Amino acid sequence: MGSDPPPKMWGGRFAGRLDSAIDRFTRSLPFDRRLARWDLIGSLAHARMLAETGTIPRADAEAILRGLSEMLRDLESGVLAAEGPDEDVHSWIERVLHERIGPAAGRLHTARSRNDQTATALRLYVRDALERVIAQACELIDVWVRQAVAHTETWMPGYTHLQRAQPVSLAHHLLAHAWSLASDVGRLRAVHAAAGTSPLGAGALAGTPHPIEPHRTAQLLGLPAVFANSMHAVADRDYVAEAIFACALLMVHLSRWAEEVVLWSTPEFGFVALDDTVAKGSSLMPQKKNPEAAELIRGKAGRVIGDLASLLAMLKGLALAYNSDLQEDKELLFDALDTASGALAAATVTARGVVYRTDRMRDALRGGFLTATDLADYLVRKGVAFRTAHERVGALVREAESRGCELWELPLPVMQGIAAEIEADVHDVLSPEGSVRARLAHGGPAPQRVAEQVVQLRGELAAARAWLSACTPPPIYRLHEEGRLLGQT
Amino acid sequence: MGSDPPPKMWGGRFAGRLDSAIDRFTRSLPFDRRLARWDLIGSLAHARMLAETGTIPRADAEAILRGLSEMLRDLESGVLAAEGPDEDVHSWIERVLHERIGPAAGRLHTARSRNDQTATALRLYVRDALERVIAQACELIDVWVRQAVAHTETWMPGYTHLQRAQPVSLAHHLLAHAWSLASDVGRLRAVHAAAGTSPLGAGALAGTPHPIEPHRTAQLLGLPAVFANSMHAVADRDYVAEAIFACALLMVHLSRWAEEVVLWSTPEFGFVALDDTVAKGSSLMPQKKNPEAAELIRGKAGRVIGDLASLLAMLKGLALAYNSDLQEDKELLFDALDTASGALAAATVTARGVVYRTDRMRDALRGGFLTATDLADYLVRKGVAFRTAHERVGALVREAESRGCELWELPLPVMQGIAAEIEADVHDVLSPEGSVRARLAHGGPAPQRVAEQVVQLRGELAAARAWLSACTPPPIYRLHEEGRLLGQT
Amino acid sequence: MGSDPPPKMWGGRFAGRLDSAIDRFTRSLPFDRRLARWDLIGSLAHARMLAETGTIPRADAEAILRGLSEMLRDLESGVLAAEGPDEDVHSWIERVLHERIGPAAGRLHTARSRNDQTATALRLYVRDALERVIAQACELIDVWVRQAVAHTETWMPGYTHLQRAQPVSLAHHLLAHAWSLASDVGRLRAVHAAAGTSPLGAGALAGTPHPIEPHRTAQLLGLPAVFANSMHAVADRDYVAEAIFACALLMVHLSRWAEEVVLWSTPEFGFVALDDTVAKGSSLMPQKKNPEAAELIRGKAGRVIGDLASLLAMLKGLALAYNSDLQEDKELLFDALDTASGALAAATVTARGVVYRTDRMRDALRGGFLTATDLADYLVRKGVAFRTAHERVGALVREAESRGCELWELPLPVMQGIAAEIEADVHDVLSPEGSVRARLAHGGPAPQRVAEQVVQLRGELAAARAWLSACTPPPIYRLHEEGRLLGQT
Amino acid sequence: MGSDPPPKMWGGRFAGRLDSAIDRFTRSLPFDRRLARWDLIGSLAHARMLAETGTIPRADAEAILRGLSEMLRDLESGVLAAEGPDEDVHSWIERVLHERIGPAAGRLHTARSRNDQTATALRLYVRDALERVIAQACELIDVWVRQAVAHTETWMPGYTHLQRAQPVSLAHHLLAHAWSLASDVGRLRAVHAAAGTSPLGAGALAGTPHPIEPHRTAQLLGLPAVFANSMHAVADRDYVAEAIFACALLMVHLSRWAEEVVLWSTPEFGFVALDDTVAKGSSLMPQKKNPEAAELIRGKAGRVIGDLASLLAMLKGLALAYNSDLQEDKELLFDALDTASGALAAATVTARGVVYRTDRMRDALRGGFLTATDLADYLVRKGVAFRTAHERVGALVREAESRGCELWELPLPVMQGIAAEIEADVHDVLSPEGSVRARLAHGGPAPQRVAEQVVQLRGELAAARAWLSACTPPPIYRLHEEGRLLGQT
Repeated sequence: MGSDPPPKMWGGRFAGRLDSAIDRFTRSLPFDRRLARWDLIGSLAHARMLAETGTIPRADAEAILRGLSEMLRDLESGVLAAEGPDEDVHSWIERVLHERIGPAAGRLHTARSRNDQTATALRLYVRDALERVIAQACELIDVWVRQAVAHTETWMPGYTHLQRAQPVSLAHHLLAHAWSLASDVGRLRAVHAAAGTSPLGAGALAGTPHPIEPHRTAQLLGLPAVFANSMHAVADRDYVAEAIFACALLMVHLSRWAEEVVLWSTPEFGFVALDDTVAKGSSLMPQKKNPEAAELIRGKAGRVIGDLASLLAMLKGLALAYNSDLQEDKELLFDALDTASGALAAATVTARGVVYRTDRMRDALRGGFLTATDLADYLVRKGVAFRTAHERVGALVREAESRGCELWELPLPVMQGIAAEIEADVHDVLSPEGSVRARLAHGGPAPQRVAEQVVQLRGELAAARAWLSACTPPPIYRLHEEGRLLGQT
Repeated sequence: MGSDPPPKMWGGRFAGRLDSAIDRFTRSLPFDRRLARWDLIGSLAHARMLAETGTIPRADAEAILRGLSEMLRDLESGVLAAEGPDEDVHSWIERVLHERIGPAAGRLHTARSRNDQTATALRLYVRDALERVIAQACELIDVWVRQAVAHTETWMPGYTHLQRAQPVSLAHHLLAHAWSLASDVGRLRAVHAAAGTSPLGAGALAGTPHPIEPHRTAQLLGLPAVFANSMHAVADRDYVAEAIFACALLMVHLSRWAEEVVLWSTPEFGFVALDDTVAKGSSLMPQKKNPEAAELIRGKAGRVIGDLASLLAMLKGLALAYNSDLQEDKELLFDALDTASGALAAATVTARGVVYRTDRMRDALRGGFLTATDLADYLVRKGVAFRTAHERVGALVREAESRGCELWELPLPVMQGIAAEIEADVHDVLSPEGSVRARLAHGGPAPQRVAEQVVQLRGELAAARAWLSACTPPPIYRLHEEGRLLGQT
Repeated sequence: MGSDPPPKMWGGRFAGRLDSAIDRFTRSLPFDRRLARWDLIGSLAHARMLAETGTIPRADAEAILRGLSEMLRDLESGVLAAEGPDEDVHSWIERVLHERIGPAAGRLHTARSRNDQTATALRLYVRDALERVIAQACELIDVWVRQAVAHTETWMPGYTHLQRAQPVSLAHHLLAHAWSLASDVGRLRAVHAAAGTSPLGAGALAGTPHPIEPHRTAQLLGLPAVFANSMHAVADRDYVAEAIFACALLMVHLSRWAEEVVLWSTPEFGFVALDDTVAKGSSLMPQKKNPEAAELIRGKAGRVIGDLASLLAMLKGLALAYNSDLQEDKELLFDALDTASGALAAATVTARGVVYRTDRMRDALRGGFLTATDLADYLVRKGVAFRTAHERVGALVREAESRGCELWELPLPVMQGIAAEIEADVHDVLSPEGSVRARLAHGGPAPQRVAEQVVQLRGELAAARAWLSACTPPPIYRLHEEGRLLGQT
Repeated sequence: MGSDPPPKMWGGRFAGRLDSAIDRFTRSLPFDRRLARWDLIGSLAHARMLAETGTIPRADAEAILRGLSEMLRDLESGVLAAEGPDEDVHSWIERVLHERIGPAAGRLHTARSRNDQTATALRLYVRDALERVIAQACELIDVWVRQAVAHTETWMPGYTHLQRAQPVSLAHHLLAHAWSLASDVGRLRAVHAAAGTSPLGAGALAGTPHPIEPHRTAQLLGLPAVFANSMHAVADRDYVAEAIFACALLMVHLSRWAEEVVLWSTPEFGFVALDDTVAKGSSLMPQKKNPEAAELIRGKAGRVIGDLASLLAMLKGLALAYNSDLQEDKELLFDALDTASGALAAATVTARGVVYRTDRMRDALRGGFLTATDLADYLVRKGVAFRTAHERVGALVREAESRGCELWELPLPVMQGIAAEIEADVHDVLSPEGSVRARLAHGGPAPQRVAEQVVQLRGELAAARAWLSACTPPPIYRLHEEGRLLGQT
């Protein structure tokens, strides 16, 4: 608290010393230290390009590359940590490099600014983090798909308005969640692509007079595209907004499933039992077994919604190009990605730890007149207009309700008194199982249709995983690993 | 307030009458009436498919198609309005159809529910609205690109932290905004594609036993894809979230430009004058000329950020499949799309009504030591390490500041006293114009590079406009216009 | 679309005509017309003060007061509507007044600006709307309190983590919601007070050289305080933020109760049945009876959360004093207040339309080992440390679970085998009813304690209603009604 | 990752071990460790009350009190840290206490649950944190008031729409911000009061059969009120929502001032210079001096807006009583309070480090026709209706603009040609200084009125500081400090 802030990368024109409260308030090292690895990789690419283009002397470039490479190795091995009094991770890198290789370190910042540097590291970070989230999402889809395969003929009520609506299969229900998550995978991949534009070379906002080659650094970093406009490059945070939005929507999807885990594990529903490995207890009430992970997943959806609101409110009304407000992007982004990742891990374990109580599901098919719609559809096939059929069945439901019986327990004459078209074959359509099997149209719950969904989802999973395995570390990182930073690629 | 709610589509099982306060609170006709056109189009496709598959009698289908087609015509001509005591637009359509064609109308709702019906209409609406927003965004990009072409050599300060940073051109600055908007166009097109999955045929949540053909209705509606899972189809609002997010980010982009219009039209900046056609006055202060449209664009960015937070908070934790909470999606979506569209229109007019005061921009290049970085880069070329060069120039800035002069007005010996490498040729790099022209690297402000950006953006514009002209009305709509609803397609 | 915008209140210095797209985008009459009544009342107070201070001639003041009074009467009777081509409600008033009384109307705007005028009308509006919302909240609390009185001895499970936790009474549960709403009433009253500062007299931002008396206008408007700083007066929107926040938190509270209505009306819980007057049906499924109002209340909580995010994001970073962004405050405020009011009305009707199924609640006390905590507390009274007691009862629960029996059905020797301190008197603490009755500590569910809560809440209700009846129309409004606008007060 | 989670407070009924991913996801110790001090204080009060009521044996109570007191001392001295494998801070306390005093520790959790325990600690934490934030806000108000006193006659333009509007004084402008912050102090104090209701004794949700005395623990904790309903007590998070809202609005206020610091320190405005102690530089551009703290304050307003949206979205739709979602309240609350505190500290230092350039303010009074309104008011005093006066002055502005001169430089005959009522005395009203001095009405910028504001604000400051010094540590804490935990109070 009392000690003076350390020298900065920009001291030249300043006579006075930065106030320590301001220093504390504006420092980003406590959180941007997470970018250390990626900032080193970005710096390696930058330094190599500077050497290749002759912008800095070959010998200095070699020293820089060797120094950065050692820092990267030490960081990954845990020997080195991004800590210290520095204001940000960029200053930390330059300071440590200077301590290690001396004055040559002063040439690394040629033709770049922290504005393009930080955006580069952040884009590399996002892409890496997204790959992990995508892999986790695939894992969860996989769990659901496997459970669906096992439960294609496990009948249960489908709900609308949380009221029993029509019989479906557990498989169909689980796959509805899987489809949501499959669309998340698509969105996350789109963000990965959007983040793949290298801003390196944009400088503070206005490029550089040095003969740099932004396409070369992009290539070394494995980024498929290069910024088009240097001011846009340092001011743009669309990829951050898109990443947080994709995480927020993913969390919303998980929250809908989590809500069902909570509901289904109540004694009232009783559709699932939670394995001891995924439930928690109460400090006061000895009998409690609580679905805490599911509750937290649901709660944390709120958290990421707020991250998104924060980011957009922060960006609103900022004049071009770079402003310090943008420094706030990182914690929001980290929080959204961490939360999505943690929630996917917890959801996957929870999904595996759920025991489906198919007897309770079957019991729930009684009560609720779940095949009333089938009865209306039966009347339609007998030539009754749907609207009329709907009214007649409504009356039959009232009749059954007042008698306290199921629709199929109504005597035929009573039924015919309300809907004359009803014949003895009506009972074929009133069984829940028959009801599901009959709904054969595309996308429906009949087992054949569900089998098609499984095939389709497995195809999507396979494609996503193939894409993931094609995601490789940046070329410059491989050169670093192979000790070939100084030679030809 | 006092009158009874009208009969509903679902009265059959109910003995009591809906309370009028509940009716008022839950009715959606006051806002979903906007979907009337699209719900009629969706109904046409549904009815035709029902006829083609023999699900309803041919004669009834003909009556329904004729009735719906006339309703659509009357609605478009203004003869008919979606008004009345009905609870939603779907009930309104069925009621009016019944009044026009009698009992055959009762067959239209065969094999569908309001759950898939409303999602179908909303998806058609979103795609149509997005096309208009995309066209408007292209228009604004076009304005900026044209102005950029005229101002490739209009020099001005580029800002970071709202402090003068380095000289750029007005063209480069305007194109930075254009690139943001170009990415919006990409995002909006992605949402258009995502919204292109037909949910029609999903029923309430669980499909139907009737022999319907969801691919056929999708084809008639011009929707490229068909839902995979009936429960997902009615519960999914990803396309709404994506559309609102795309609008929110677009508004954030516009707010950044609007902030600059406000700033630049102050007497302090004075970089633009607002034409009388785009400024407003004060009721009290006779001299005022206010950039109100720009301010409102900025303010309305906050509005759409909130729309997004609303939608995500609403979706959070909803058990499958359909819940009435989802009814809240519409007003939020309409508000986001309307706001984006209105803001784009106002921004385009304002952008055209801005008069650039290039003299004031030129004046602003004095003061602020805008070529200090060029001087550091000059020293780098003389062999000084960048970090050292940065410090030396910092000291030179302090020197010039204390003398109250520009960097180029410092006597050579004074400069050399601080940085011995400086020679007489230093003055070549200290002029703002020279500075911009020298920053020739990719994506930089030099006129050649800006010309490349213009070519690239024009290519993107042309592609977007080609895509827009390939967006045609749904095939069923053409059949309706051509009076061929009942024949072969 | 094509027609020219009408003359404005600020045309003098403008040569050109406002663009029609800008006019459409920036007009507020379509929504601020709601303020017409309050803006007229504010204008009456302003005009009277101008007359009293001699700022405008007596004869003109009389004409103005008469004209405004007639406009107010016509507006309230429906003869006059705030419609037209005017840009806002303030311009509309001045235009209509001019049409009615001629040039004297031109003196009304002396010593005021639309900036203080609009803030005045909005504050009057907010206070009035808050009074209605508070009255509605009292109504709902009243319903819950009455039901609580009837259900003090209706036992049911209390839930944590949506798992059955301990027995409580329905009364205790309902009162928990009532307490949340009672705190909303407190918050809404605090906002009412905060909004009671008159900004009239602040002018555009900087007061006026005329000898006005802001305390006099405040008195005439029934506002207890007067602005302290003219710039703050026109820039401040804290009362709007506070009102929307209070509505958002109220909606969150309602959403928690609404969630329970949805849950409890499932066949799985079955704790309530919805009267036909408060449930809705399905267009497809004839048997459905859906708690749509409750669902919508829940969904609309998301809406108001977004209104709050919008408002705060809009306010963020606005330089002093007035900016057009502030125009966005109105629709957000109206939406929050309308939503809260509509939701309270619907909640009150729904709460009245709920039939409690006390048999189902009683049944739910079996299963779930709800008195396990009582057993642990019993052991504590026998001298066992709580942590040990908790573990022992946990083991007893496992034993009972594996036997498929209730705790009280375990043979005494089996119980003693796990917890030796257990004696025959254990059965006294294992009954749900005994459990509730025993929890006699302050704030607990025992009937005596619940009776105290009822007394306390009724006290709060009485106080709130007394406060409401002390809320009277502004003095100037009474003068208007009594036709004494021109005489002494 | 690999190691097993430690034993929990609730292991009894569980046969299986919690999955380590679930453990990681649901643990709160990493962040609720902040509550350790307050949870110990709450535990001290609880233990003492248990002893006083004879609920636990005196000897055990003494051991517990001694043990907790030592833990508190060790925690405050830094000897002890709330770290370990425990799932939350409550488990940590019980484990460490057990390690220190043995089995007696098992009696501490008698008659309480983590649900009431965590709410108690959080309320104590919030009140303490609010006191610090209030003190900081007072400090900043103080700085502004002092600067205002020094600048009562420093004239500058007042702005609306960021256009020069009318002359004001710097004092008046600064005090506008001070009034916003003064209202924050009021709001923060109201939250402090709202958080002062003790939930201790509510148990998990349903109270306890033990003879506890919640009013006694409240008294020992210095909390003025006691919960009314045990279910409400554990489910309620209104005080968290209110605290975050108060922080969000405070941040919005700071962001408006920060925006002006950014604007005013541009060379274009130049109204302030930043001392070197409060500005930062650029890593690339040697001349830059950036108002980074102000920018970050502005940006962080977005952050807290999102915290609020997160919290409300999390709370929405939670059934009673406690749910794990509520665990998310802490990080959001901590973030909002930390951000507000950090921003106030940075703002205070920045406000002190700002050098007002009164010459530049004075220069800015030329250009912009800032006394046009005075001229209109002059005409009003000459008998012209305001609307007419406004139009005439508008025409005079156009005339002056076309001549490129100030209003006061227009020849009298020219003025009279447009407004015949103008006489030679017009020049008295056209000087900026005269204009400010003439605006003498209440709340206006005239020095006498500003002096009144200063008196009023100083009164509010004194009251707030008196209140702060009356905020004392909880009585139980004093007993702990005085080593009198076991005797009489």
